Amino acid sequence: MNVKLLADLRSELPSSIIIEDTDVLASHASDWSKSAALAPPCVLRPETTEQVSLILRLCNQHQQAVVTQGGLTGLSGGATPAAGEIALSLSRLQGVIDLDSKGQTITVRAGTTLQTIQEAADAAGFKFALDLGARGNCSIGGNLATNAGGNQVIKYGMARAQVLGLEAVKADGTIVRAMNSMLKDNAGYDLKQLFIGSEGTLGVITECVLRLHPKPRSVNTALCGCASFDSAVTLLGHVQSQLGTVSSYEVMWRSYFDYAIENVAHTRNPMNEAHEFYVLIEQECDGTDHAAEHFLTVLSEAIDQGVANDVIVAQSAREANQLWDIRDAIADILSQIAPLANFDIGVPIKFMEEFIDQVDRELHAKYSNLTFFVFGHLGDGNLHLCASTGNADDAKSIYAQTYEIASHFSASVTAEHGVGTQKTKYLHLTRSKEELAMMRDLKRALDPNNILNPGRVVDIG
Amino acid sequence: MNVKLLADLRSELPSSIIIEDTDVLASHASDWSKSAALAPPCVLRPETTEQVSLILRLCNQHQQAVVTQGGLTGLSGGATPAAGEIALSLSRLQGVIDLDSKGQTITVRAGTTLQTIQEAADAAGFKFALDLGARGNCSIGGNLATNAGGNQVIKYGMARAQVLGLEAVKADGTIVRAMNSMLKDNAGYDLKQLFIGSEGTLGVITECVLRLHPKPRSVNTALCGCASFDSAVTLLGHVQSQLGTVSSYEVMWRSYFDYAIENVAHTRNPMNEAHEFYVLIEQECDGTDHAAEHFLTVLSEAIDQGVANDVIVAQSAREANQLWDIRDAIADILSQIAPLANFDIGVPIKFMEEFIDQVDRELHAKYSNLTFFVFGHLGDGNLHLCASTGNADDAKSIYAQTYEIASHFSASVTAEHGVGTQKTKYLHLTRSKEELAMMRDLKRALDPNNILNPGRVVDIG
Repeated sequence: MNVKLLADLRSELPSSIIIEDTDVLASHASDWSKSAALAPPCVLRPETTEQVSLILRLCNQHQQAVVTQGGLTGLSGGATPAAGEIALSLSRLQGVIDLDSKGQTITVRAGTTLQTIQEAADAAGFKFALDLGARGNCSIGGNLATNAGGNQVIKYGMARAQVLGLEAVKADGTIVRAMNSMLKDNAGYDLKQLFIGSEGTLGVITECVLRLHPKPRSVNTALCGCASFDSAVTLLGHVQSQLGTVSSYEVMWRSYFDYAIENVAHTRNPMNEAHEFYVLIEQECDGTDHAAEHFLTVLSEAIDQGVANDVIVAQSAREANQLWDIRDAIADILSQIAPLANFDIGVPIKFMEEFIDQVDRELHAKYSNLTFFVFGHLGDGNLHLCASTGNADDAKSIYAQTYEIASHFSASVTAEHGVGTQKTKYLHLTRSKEELAMMRDLKRALDPNNILNPGRVVDIG
Repeated sequence: MNVKLLADLRSELPSSIIIEDTDVLASHASDWSKSAALAPPCVLRPETTEQVSLILRLCNQHQQAVVTQGGLTGLSGGATPAAGEIALSLSRLQGVIDLDSKGQTITVRAGTTLQTIQEAADAAGFKFALDLGARGNCSIGGNLATNAGGNQVIKYGMARAQVLGLEAVKADGTIVRAMNSMLKDNAGYDLKQLFIGSEGTLGVITECVLRLHPKPRSVNTALCGCASFDSAVTLLGHVQSQLGTVSSYEVMWRSYFDYAIENVAHTRNPMNEAHEFYVLIEQECDGTDHAAEHFLTVLSEAIDQGVANDVIVAQSAREANQLWDIRDAIADILSQIAPLANFDIGVPIKFMEEFIDQVDRELHAKYSNLTFFVFGHLGDGNLHLCASTGNADDAKSIYAQTYEIASHFSASVTAEHGVGTQKTKYLHLTRSKEELAMMRDLKRALDPNNILNPGRVVDIG
């Protein structure tokens, strides 16, 4: 790395901020995608926004590329350093700054873990409405930079929907403090939207004001078996029209369900018969006995109408957890079938079945030893496909082939995990050249020296 | 206007698109703010996105300023032509293109009225979750360009939250088609966010994919009387913790309530006693008898706990409408007290009372004949203040004085109406110089010739 820059950083920052210890550098070599691990030449761990600003100002002057890192739980390689990139870790810029019970907001630093925020909200009688498996490790800065999703998007929206205000540092070191705390604010362009979901390529998020929601008094959970994809879609319409918005609507193709039950130790099948589709439904409600009864009534109607063939309603939190264990088994499955092609494709519900059928057919025709299964957030138009032959080269071909098929179904190559470094070459399949050109224009306008996470999302190098 | 441009437009567009009839021009001279009415030299009414693209390409070549117009219901002067600006009306680019019941989306052209969309959604068994008084006149393109608010933001968010996909035309005529239809889509920068809420200064919205919600099976409505502002805030926390998110939480200061009852013919006071604050609460629910009973129980508890002093629960849609009539009386009141200073200030709930008290005190100290009252969307951090002495110069002074006070309370000079032309000079009071600089950078990057709604929001002229 640039010797003059390092000297400048040393002269302007406390020595504790600049880390060159080999073990520490190794721990910053990759995100959870484990792709192309490469230790950075140094890691900077600022403790204040002003230090982030100073670091970026100097790096910009020296045209030094920087990769921003939060909890390193990303799945698209966005936070994995490329050769020569300094790692800017926000792990020390953490903590809850304020919780406003009247305004129902929480203000936190970017390095704060999602779980810390959830717990602070809970302790104050609120719910922070973003949740994902990496909650204990991921940082809110990374959640916002990647516009994280999860299992409750159908009710609460993505990470973007939780943000009221934001502080970010631009590539040139300018601190843009836009810490609005109201649900409504139309005073000029909504600048925070540019930093959310742009994966650190347009600025570094340092602080934010997040919205809190009322804590639900109880949660109803059920697992339904359906005979067809159409039934699973009809069931969604039925429960929403009778119950209002549900908080989760997770669909598992039989291929996934059976694999999970057979291969993951702590799952058990609560159904007596097999079904083509399994739907996990969660509804938050007011805690009255009536609400639980109504949930049961509405699902019984679904059976009467032939929309669902079987329904298991959890009678306790323990039973609800057992139902979720089947859905969450994916965490164990991924390592069992690695190397694999692992997708988070967005596809309109009306095209889902045809799309999956085509991928299933084409991949099975090509690979005789294929493990393939599907599950996902049906209501969000977001499916996870996992395909593996146990061979890494096959996985590469499967990626290319599947994204190509997706491009014919008004799809998105990434619904929630983000583009990172891994999907840049497929982005054009579901984005027009005008969209890509506008993305590059924005990148050039906000980071003309291309120092922030260069090569991620769109390439202007 | 530029003769060469007019010739180019005539040679490339059907003659019916270019309108120079004086009466028609007069009807495009102002939005509902009625500020500085000035007929444009011509009105262009394209029927396709391609015609919008051609118009902007030619105007950009000739550096001709264009003001984009939808239903002309804005309240900030944003769509009122400045001298020499051509009016680009999207009124003919209208209609529902598609309603997808499985995906729960509706795709419409920008000139479609809000009411048309609401009715199409309703007919298909869904709810389109944006509503405001101008529904019959305003166009969805204008709603999105201004990120419209309304009375149900606390549950459903602003117009921005209803948008999944967007097509817009940039200043140079480039058509950016980003018509995503899924709840989740993280494939690159979320370009639509730049066009939403930027008041037509960064592009012209031509088409969109909107999210639909389940239609609630019933609605509970109540009017509560509270002794203090703190009680009104506590009541919000109480009902949300017991009922979940409410769909409206509108607060009327006694000054507003009394004025409406006394001065607007079709209002009547359902309360036996006077209260310092009145809260209109609406909850959408599942249509069961139990839900109505639970609503009553929760509000009865509020009385038992001393949070509310009186509660009227509507027993029919007619009674609910009568309660809403008091809140909606503002439409009649505005003309009664014109000229007035009319605010849509955003202010954190924790500062609301102090802010209003200071404005009330300072304005009353200065103006002996002041009419002043306050109401608004408490849960959204958005208050409407109306102040009038019947004198237009006083109104100007009141604007300046009130925005200056607001600047000390982490406020926003506009929570929902937008900046337009009327609030540009106050924007710096609640936006930092770094924010304003970034807004100007974006404007320069996307509209370097400054032809789109120049002078609105931020000035780069």
